[in-house]
Amino acid sequence: MTPPALTTSLVEQLLAIEEIKRLFAQRLRVMDTKQWDHYGELHTADVVSEAYVGRQVIGREALTRAIRTTLDGPTTVTSVHHGHTPEIVLDSDTTAHGTWAMEDKLWWRNGDQDELLHGFGHYHEQYRKVDGAWLISHRRLTRLRVDTTPGFYDYRSAST
Amino acid sequence: MTPPALTTSLVEQLLAIEEIKRLFAQRLRVMDTKQWDHYGELHTADVVSEAYVGRQVIGREALTRAIRTTLDGPTTVTSVHHGHTPEIVLDSDTTAHGTWAMEDKLWWRNGDQDELLHGFGHYHEQYRKVDGAWLISHRRLTRLRVDTTPGFYDYRSAST
Amino acid sequence: MTPPALTTSLVEQLLAIEEIKRLFAQRLRVMDTKQWDHYGELHTADVVSEAYVGRQVIGREALTRAIRTTLDGPTTVTSVHHGHTPEIVLDSDTTAHGTWAMEDKLWWRNGDQDELLHGFGHYHEQYRKVDGAWLISHRRLTRLRVDTTPGFYDYRSAST
Repeated sequence: MTPPALTTSLVEQLLAIEEIKRLFAQRLRVMDTKQWDHYGELHTADVVSEAYVGRQVIGREALTRAIRTTLDGPTTVTSVHHGHTPEIVLDSDTTAHGTWAMEDKLWWRNGDQDELLHGFGHYHEQYRKVDGAWLISHRRLTRLRVDTTPGFYDYRSAST
Repeated sequence: MTPPALTTSLVEQLLAIEEIKRLFAQRLRVMDTKQWDHYGELHTADVVSEAYVGRQVIGREALTRAIRTTLDGPTTVTSVHHGHTPEIVLDSDTTAHGTWAMEDKLWWRNGDQDELLHGFGHYHEQYRKVDGAWLISHRRLTRLRVDTTPGFYDYRSAST
Repeated sequence: MTPPALTTSLVEQLLAIEEIKRLFAQRLRVMDTKQWDHYGELHTADVVSEAYVGRQVIGREALTRAIRTTLDGPTTVTSVHHGHTPEIVLDSDTTAHGTWAMEDKLWWRNGDQDELLHGFGHYHEQYRKVDGAWLISHRRLTRLRVDTTPGFYDYRSAST
């Protein structure tokens, strides 16, 4: 648990792991409760997200815009993102990486029926401590399975 | 992480957080395995729960009675409550608060079919250390979404 | 938290708990991503699993074989296993036990339709520290509920 790059004490390392877990928790909660003013600040200014199919999203503002457009644009999408069983590894006093099992559900109302995406996979994240606070600097999502109703993606083409 | 009100060491604070996580885990496990004799003791004597729609439940005994009536009255309800990604904050040496993402499923057998409630949200809890043990002193549940089969609530009106 | 059998410091105990949580996380991730070469090594050589209905599986190799046959034999089964709210208790410097809430989903393709098992319950595990690394030495699974499509188990009889 203590690679040469770490100079902090064991208790400080355990605190760092707890802070990173709490950061991850905040990100999901802020997203699912649509508090967009607090989403960007959980990430580094140069954050890279590979959680969107087929493209990278770079930077706090672009990332907030991307998720806000997805969940809270012309169509309101109710989302539930759950993260499980973190494996957090400290790489230095100010950098870390971690893997989380995840499940997400997204619903929107299409006329008189619900459209649904239901997915499973793992978040692979990197973290950096900036001015005393841990932030997410990189996110990649790998999928085990995703199920959607046939019309789920219709709102996205309609809204852009 | 160390507000002025805290006099304990960092390692004692991390232990407190771990103990609160374990307390929360016990509450869900004891509820889903219907060990009602152990449910009340996880809460302070003056616990307040706002996890029931439209009313407060106050005190260990009333809270145990409320959940027991809901899950293990004339109709047996199978329940699964899962809690995720805790954000625990210590407010003093003996008080803390925390937020958990949650999902619950409740099933009961209505003739030859299953009735189901499937919900998602967040638990917002407060904790107090009493005689050396952390206990839950307040619980509020906010919902992101709840789905039920049309007849789900029938057993409640029938059983009271 | 400190039974007489423990001689380690509080911070070392918190590290042990974190390492056991990470071990548990690895087991589920390695299983769901089908990395069978890394599955056995997370368990003690004499591991006993009571997670299979009606039988014990003993030893790393037999356990890896059992889960590999279940998920990655002639029929490929997509699996998602999630574990929640650990209650880890250290029994000595080198032994521990813990309970986790769990949910699992298993899918396989039967002609033009999906077969599905969806289960809920608790893992009851024991851990042992061997050569400096925590390993799983015993696993028992208790169930709250399991739902399956009518043909779910067909692939097992077909493949043996």
